Amino acid sequence: MEIIMKPIGYIKTSYTDDEIMPRQSIDSMDEVGTIEILDEYKDGIKDIEAGSYVTLLFYFHKSDQWSLISKRRDNKGIYSTRSPRRPNGIGMSIVKIASVENSKIKFFGVDMLDGTPVLDIKPYIEDFAR
Amino acid sequence: MEIIMKPIGYIKTSYTDDEIMPRQSIDSMDEVGTIEILDEYKDGIKDIEAGSYVTLLFYFHKSDQWSLISKRRDNKGIYSTRSPRRPNGIGMSIVKIASVENSKIKFFGVDMLDGTPVLDIKPYIEDFAR
Repeated sequence: MEIIMKPIGYIKTSYTDDEIMPRQSIDSMDEVGTIEILDEYKDGIKDIEAGSYVTLLFYFHKSDQWSLISKRRDNKGIYSTRSPRRPNGIGMSIVKIASVENSKIKFFGVDMLDGTPVLDIKPYIEDFAR
Repeated sequence: MEIIMKPIGYIKTSYTDDEIMPRQSIDSMDEVGTIEILDEYKDGIKDIEAGSYVTLLFYFHKSDQWSLISKRRDNKGIYSTRSPRRPNGIGMSIVKIASVENSKIKFFGVDMLDGTPVLDIKPYIEDFAR
């Protein structure tokens, strides 16, 4: 079974090199990135509000290999890590919306490379583990 | 640009009908579901621990249509809803691990249909919005 996905937009950030990029969006809440939503999906973002948190799902487009064991993360199983070198290559970050203007969404919490394809945006699910 | 994904496993649940299924995993923490990981991905789950919370990413395999405006959710833009009728059809739920045995993961917080393909499992990101 194969599932085919298409980007709904692309992220512009200042990071072109994986080595200098923050590992998590929480380490990068003073950086601003921009999501440029493709015209055909624009109507879907009309209710996203500045100041709110959302979950971004994106594609690790620069990760061309994956491994079930992450050597960089103490040989942990990949599904206990956030490593980009994972099957299906889906990345997830919680970011804070700075502004929404037409098809451009500015956000705080940048931990993705420039040119990253966006797959989905979801309302942030509050912590219910407490 | 097309991105091709493959299921890493499938979820067994008691829900075969969308209408009777809980809308969110938090409403279903006494229900138990089972993720059956395919053999080729089994090594990736070795560090998932009973009692922990994880984020499941899966594919809404029964949603064959999507809309940018969700009529069932007060005509909200799809990216402000968790509706399954969304471009790329990725579902996300935070679930609590009950047990891990070989390639079978039992979990609480079932809000997906029987036979749902799993795309990824990620460690739960704690609430930093507070």
